[in-house]
Amino acid sequence: MVLIFEKINLEKDETMNIGIDLGGTNISGGVVDEKGNILLTKSLYTMSERDSLLIIKDIIKVIESLKKEAFEKGISIESVGIGVPGPVDVDNGIVLLCVNLGWENIHLVDILKEKTQLPVFLQNDGSLAGFAEFKFGALKNISTGVLLTLGTGVGGAVVIDNHLVESKNGIASELGHMVVGENFYDCNCGKNGCLETFSSATAIKKYVRQRITDGERNTIILNMAKNDIKKIGGKMIIEAAKKGDKLALEAVDRLASYLGLGIVNIASVIDPEVFLIGGGLSKTGDFLLDKIKAAVNNHKFFQTLGIGDVKIAKFGSEAGVIGAAAYAESRMTKDKI
Amino acid sequence: MVLIFEKINLEKDETMNIGIDLGGTNISGGVVDEKGNILLTKSLYTMSERDSLLIIKDIIKVIESLKKEAFEKGISIESVGIGVPGPVDVDNGIVLLCVNLGWENIHLVDILKEKTQLPVFLQNDGSLAGFAEFKFGALKNISTGVLLTLGTGVGGAVVIDNHLVESKNGIASELGHMVVGENFYDCNCGKNGCLETFSSATAIKKYVRQRITDGERNTIILNMAKNDIKKIGGKMIIEAAKKGDKLALEAVDRLASYLGLGIVNIASVIDPEVFLIGGGLSKTGDFLLDKIKAAVNNHKFFQTLGIGDVKIAKFGSEAGVIGAAAYAESRMTKDKI
Repeated sequence: MVLIFEKINLEKDETMNIGIDLGGTNISGGVVDEKGNILLTKSLYTMSERDSLLIIKDIIKVIESLKKEAFEKGISIESVGIGVPGPVDVDNGIVLLCVNLGWENIHLVDILKEKTQLPVFLQNDGSLAGFAEFKFGALKNISTGVLLTLGTGVGGAVVIDNHLVESKNGIASELGHMVVGENFYDCNCGKNGCLETFSSATAIKKYVRQRITDGERNTIILNMAKNDIKKIGGKMIIEAAKKGDKLALEAVDRLASYLGLGIVNIASVIDPEVFLIGGGLSKTGDFLLDKIKAAVNNHKFFQTLGIGDVKIAKFGSEAGVIGAAAYAESRMTKDKI
Repeated sequence: MVLIFEKINLEKDETMNIGIDLGGTNISGGVVDEKGNILLTKSLYTMSERDSLLIIKDIIKVIESLKKEAFEKGISIESVGIGVPGPVDVDNGIVLLCVNLGWENIHLVDILKEKTQLPVFLQNDGSLAGFAEFKFGALKNISTGVLLTLGTGVGGAVVIDNHLVESKNGIASELGHMVVGENFYDCNCGKNGCLETFSSATAIKKYVRQRITDGERNTIILNMAKNDIKKIGGKMIIEAAKKGDKLALEAVDRLASYLGLGIVNIASVIDPEVFLIGGGLSKTGDFLLDKIKAAVNNHKFFQTLGIGDVKIAKFGSEAGVIGAAAYAESRMTKDKI
């Protein structure tokens, strides 16, 4: 996360928002200005195996600490946005499901509002990463765009006509659970063939490990992982593919092909202007992007017609905090109107 | 199409719109009031093998005939909406592709405007059927809903936040081309696994014919078709399934299962309030609907969370004309603002 506090000349009593990104590893928080700059940060370990109430206590600690520090710098906090890794009920501020944290039907907004005495707005973390791109990043000036984040799973955001799509049951933009084929292992959700079992960092890791377990030895990945199959990771596989390693190339081509199919399937529903690729794997550069673009072109159903541009997202792991704060600000403005 | 002219008491100089539904078989036109009632109709055969200019000449004939008849009844025509079976460029009024008619890049709106001296608005026919449901049918008072029409192919409409979704390249709501599996024959679009190769009337017809060709004889469908495999049709198969015929049941269950998967895939993108089932096959009643609902439930990725209601559409083949006229009216209003 880039702190740019020193560069900013604050006028007295400036008003900003706090963004919180609740992940399986960290509770990341930040004070964010109206241009999407993170001015102050605070982070605590999630320790996801703990009781939800203890985790929520630490979320409040992060908010209170940021609020206090902001106050000392002459910044007053107007509202808090928080993103969680799972489906949410936006209107009622309820976390419907968080498999990683073992949460179900947690009335997070009510608790945070009461304890912090601030307006609090809840969203899915992927949606907030997309909102950051839409406000300040690679979806700026784009009215309809989709973000697909390639990380542990495949998350995402759907922006239509300058708004995050309104989800009736909290399952919109769960793009990782679109079924695109049959796979050799089941998804965490219990189904087979979900996009995230083909096109996430976890997916290529599992694929390469399986191939090696099945007897494949002719790969530099084994050297890179010092012969410890557990050390094989997503970015390592992409690096090996860049060097021409056959197994790694097969894994990356498989990822790209199914992602291309998923993108074309999304286009058959909403045909957006742009498909953004974000998340950890997106930081490996044009090598992966070019393969995804080729796959999209290959899977197109009307070869003579266009399809949305495929681009790399602007933000990295900071997208969640920026998006959460910007979302809270936008909800405050909307509620004022 | 139901003509209700006799029931209507017109005030003098009432203003209405013309809706045109260009299909592979008919050019259907109607004068439609602001409540979605069709007051006058006119239809000509498309004879789709003809040159596009001859077909367009007949479209103009239908419009002029309706305009004249309307004038005689004291109705003045404000605008014309036209739906075509393929992707369109709405803003520029261009038919991008119509496989059935062999059309590509036809500047239909420019021609019709010049010849009729009326404002003309172009849309995809599936989208207009959805617009009719949204304005006057089963999507009324629903802000986000999806129509899937099961006919020769699978078409559809996507309404988000009270508007037809804006399509960047004309391929939005081409729901029949979402890939949902592998199939024994390729789609017209050249790809394999498109939803319409599993869940259209054509799809179950092909499936049953193939099974019979492969040697299946234990089915009442053969009797129903008088042993002529070419006479086997979609509705016939559903009737046979209702009577418990094993092959027919397998065909209908297969249709429903893949449609359920397609619906869940759409939910993973936009999670609408309602999924409407329209088109010829939808008129076979609750038997098919119940199977589709069960399949949706079976394919859901978070079993504890909800998913949009699945319902039967209100309109039949008249949806295109009603939707086209209503769409033209709505565009006129929008353009006035």
